[in-house]
Order: sequence, then structure tokens, then C-alpha cells
Amino acid sequence: MADGETVSRFRVRYAETDAMGIAHHSQYIIWFEVGRSDWFREKGASYTLCEAQGVRFPVAEMSVRFSQPAFYDNAITVRTRLSEIRSRSVTFRYQVHDETGALLATGHTRHICVNEERQTQTIPDWLREILEENLERSS
Amino acid sequence: MADGETVSRFRVRYAETDAMGIAHHSQYIIWFEVGRSDWFREKGASYTLCEAQGVRFPVAEMSVRFSQPAFYDNAITVRTRLSEIRSRSVTFRYQVHDETGALLATGHTRHICVNEERQTQTIPDWLREILEENLERSS
Amino acid sequence: MADGETVSRFRVRYAETDAMGIAHHSQYIIWFEVGRSDWFREKGASYTLCEAQGVRFPVAEMSVRFSQPAFYDNAITVRTRLSEIRSRSVTFRYQVHDETGALLATGHTRHICVNEERQTQTIPDWLREILEENLERSS
Amino acid sequence: MADGETVSRFRVRYAETDAMGIAHHSQYIIWFEVGRSDWFREKGASYTLCEAQGVRFPVAEMSVRFSQPAFYDNAITVRTRLSEIRSRSVTFRYQVHDETGALLATGHTRHICVNEERQTQTIPDWLREILEENLERSS
Repeated sequence: MADGETVSRFRVRYAETDAMGIAHHSQYIIWFEVGRSDWFREKGASYTLCEAQGVRFPVAEMSVRFSQPAFYDNAITVRTRLSEIRSRSVTFRYQVHDETGALLATGHTRHICVNEERQTQTIPDWLREILEENLERSS
Repeated sequence: MADGETVSRFRVRYAETDAMGIAHHSQYIIWFEVGRSDWFREKGASYTLCEAQGVRFPVAEMSVRFSQPAFYDNAITVRTRLSEIRSRSVTFRYQVHDETGALLATGHTRHICVNEERQTQTIPDWLREILEENLERSS
Repeated sequence: MADGETVSRFRVRYAETDAMGIAHHSQYIIWFEVGRSDWFREKGASYTLCEAQGVRFPVAEMSVRFSQPAFYDNAITVRTRLSEIRSRSVTFRYQVHDETGALLATGHTRHICVNEERQTQTIPDWLREILEENLERSS
Repeated sequence: MADGETVSRFRVRYAETDAMGIAHHSQYIIWFEVGRSDWFREKGASYTLCEAQGVRFPVAEMSVRFSQPAFYDNAITVRTRLSEIRSRSVTFRYQVHDETGALLATGHTRHICVNEERQTQTIPDWLREILEENLERSS
């Protein structure tokens, strides 16, 4: 496990499949969110805490590259890393594998730090400290 | 079209299908919501207006009976009727057809009237008048 | 844990919430499916196995009663029981709790046994045996 | 309307919103699919026809950039253009606007042409002709 990385595990739900018999591509965005959600909670700054402190992180951009499909009931692993911190934004990177170890997809999401009125704000110091401690180390 | 009934039309999205090749059963709950949403808007009391007036209608119970499956790109019709008004709740009934006229599903949702703090409240008079004008006539 | 009951655990995803700040009511149908999916796998007759044997269980009817809302990141428990077996259908019952032990919702789904061409069929013997062993005991 | 572009219109569903009160970012992927689905149907090569001819287009990569949020019941417009054709893949580009004309998001999806066994194949001639006729003209 790389520095600062978190690992999320769950199975592909039947409702997540489509008529091609594979997990619908939009689901990976939700799986990234599950990974990011676990990342924040494990690092001590859960979304719930962030929201209580007036901090939200809507998505400014995102991308996914797909290598192989996932099927119903596959045991999925999402590895989540914080790859960049700026004064008002953060970027996460994700790797999705199935139980055979096959890489299914990689992707990223960039988030803007906003307040409750959806105005961009500088990431507050208490949160910046947590983020910086857990920033992915370049290797 | 029965008294007070509204009709909503849309196509089955690919993302709404599952590995059985049919629209996933959970989608009908969302289609009912599209129907109810159109009903409120067409009757002059859109959810947006209701929320601005401190009125929300979370679902207290719901049911669906399925007759036939829907497939990708089918042109779906949802017919929505208000079937009961009580002091603090309302019940809607729905019929879902495809473009051949086949009945796919019927169902109902019952909603409690709550305020912004999620406390049960009596349906306000301005809204009750609109609802009563559009209550399904017994036949 | 009641006879034959299985327990599924997961957290409410952010994508599952709606603008009322609670888990959308349609999600409970998907959570029931997660419960049912775990039930079949734990009993030795996973959906994947069933489908390989030409057996599918589309939903014929379903209902949910809601007691309390679920919020983002709540740790959800779904308890799943097989409550009835007929020659060509089965009925499951579900209870959804949060981490405080509060009951959030109860519901049921009834499923028709069909073959790959979506024709109703008698539940095959190998599967009937597994189901009967795990039928909820009346109490 | 640019050459070959199609326009899809629908409203933001309540189920598509999240606890931030905005349409969840994963929904844009589904809205792109609605746009692409309309594009194929309007050009005479609906997905249903393609699948009947043994042609499928799973997503190989996708990206979205978000400018402004969408809210419940907003009237959304998705503009879809085919921006590139290769021997075994196609790329679509999308623009999402709300009813005020504000640009909410832009994005792309790249699709691999596969057969029913999910093996990459050259785009068949009958389909290539339709695609080439409707390729976005450089401006």
C-alpha cells in the first residue's frame, strides 16, 4: 500500500450492471466517491465533519480510463490517493481492481473547496494539515 | 385521461437496464417520482415551490406490481393520479405503459407532509386547495 | 439472528442521498437486492450460479414502509429472510437498521422463477432444496 | 446547431440530486449517454439496431469538466457531436446547458467497437457510412 493510500472493498451490485452484462461505466464515478469517502474518514476528516465545518468539495473535473469490464458480484477494490493539494483545490487518483488482481480502471477527480453558499474558499488550516500529512509521496 | 391525471413520457435509458436486459425494478420508483414531479408542477405547486414554502413530502410507504418488463429505448408513459388526501399525508397511484400500450407496472406511494426540520405538519391550506381540486374522482 | 436470516452491512453512499439530505427512497430497493444477493450467495446458490443453471428471479411485486431516514455515511444493516416458497415464486422480507439500532424500513419482494427466455418455470429441485432448508421458521 | 449535432432535453430528476442540493456529478455521464443514444437513433443507427447487428460500443475513456451545478427540475439540454472516427473506435463530445443558457459541463467519451463476445472489431461498413456522414465538421 503506497503512502497515504486507502483501500475500499465491495461487490458489484446487480443494479449496477447494464444490458451488456457489465457494470455500467457511470458506476465507477460512484465507486471513486466511495474510495474518497473512505479516504477522508480514515484520515480523520470525514465528509460529515467537513460539512459541519462549512467545507465541501464539489467535483470540478473527472476522468476514467477503462481496461476491463466488471461483472455482477465481482469483489472490487478501489485504491485512493491524494495526488495534489492547491490552495483551493485537491486532486485524487484511483485504481480499480477485481478479485483476480486485474486492473479494471484508473481515474482522477479534482475538487474545489467551497463554503455552504458554494463560494470558492481557501482550504482551512486544520484540514490542510491533515491533507498534507497524507499526500501521496512521489516515488 | 382521468380527472386530475397527468401523463409523463420518456425513454428507458441504457443506464437503467440491468444484466437481465430489462429496466431494473428500482427504476420504476424513480419513474413514479418523475410522474409525481410533473403532477405537482402541472397543478401549480411544483416541489421547488413547496420547498420554498417549507413543505416536503418524504415517502412513508410504496409498492409496485410488475406485469411485463421494459427494455432499453422503450417509450414509457407514466400516468399519475392523486388518490387520497389526509390532514398530514397524500397518496399517489401510478400506471406505467410502454409504446405498444402494454401495462408494465402499477404502484402507489404515500407521503407524509413535513417541515424543513422533518417534523410532521398539517398540509397548509394553499396547498390543500390545489390538491383537493385535483383529487382523482371515484368512478 | 433468526433462522435462515442473513445480515448485510454497508455505508450510505453520498450518491445515494438526495436534496432532502437523506438516502433516496429508491435506494432501499437496491439495498434489499444487496441483502438478497448476499442471502443467495451465503446459502450456496449465488445468482451467478442460478443464472448459469438457467434460473432467474425477476421481481413481480415489492413494497417498503419507511420509519426513519438514513443519512450519508450511516452504517446500514439489512436483514434478509426467505418468508415463502411456492412452486414458481419466492418471497423475501427485509429489515433495514442504522448503527444506532433504529429501524429505518421494512419491506418485501416477491420473485417469479423464469428461464433464460423469461418464461415462468417451476423452481428446479436442486434450488428448492436449498431454499426449503433456509426458509424462515414461523415463531 | 452545428453540423451533425443532436440536442436532447429533459429535466433534472429529484433522485439525481444529492445532499449538496445539486445534481450528482455521476449523472452527467448518464446524461451524456442519453445524448449519445438520441444521436444514434436520430442518425438511423439506434443502439437497438447496432446490438441486433452484433455491434456494441463500451466506453474506453471519458472525462467531464464542470462549470456550474444543476438543480432539481432544471430543464437540461445536452448537445452531442461525433468528433472522431477511427477504424475501431469513435469519440463523442458533449455540452450541457440549463434553461438560462448557462454552460454547466463539457465532456467526451471514447468507445471501442466490439462484437457480442466483447472482442474488438473494425466498425462495419454500413455503420461507418452513417458515422462519416455525421462527423462534426472542423470549423
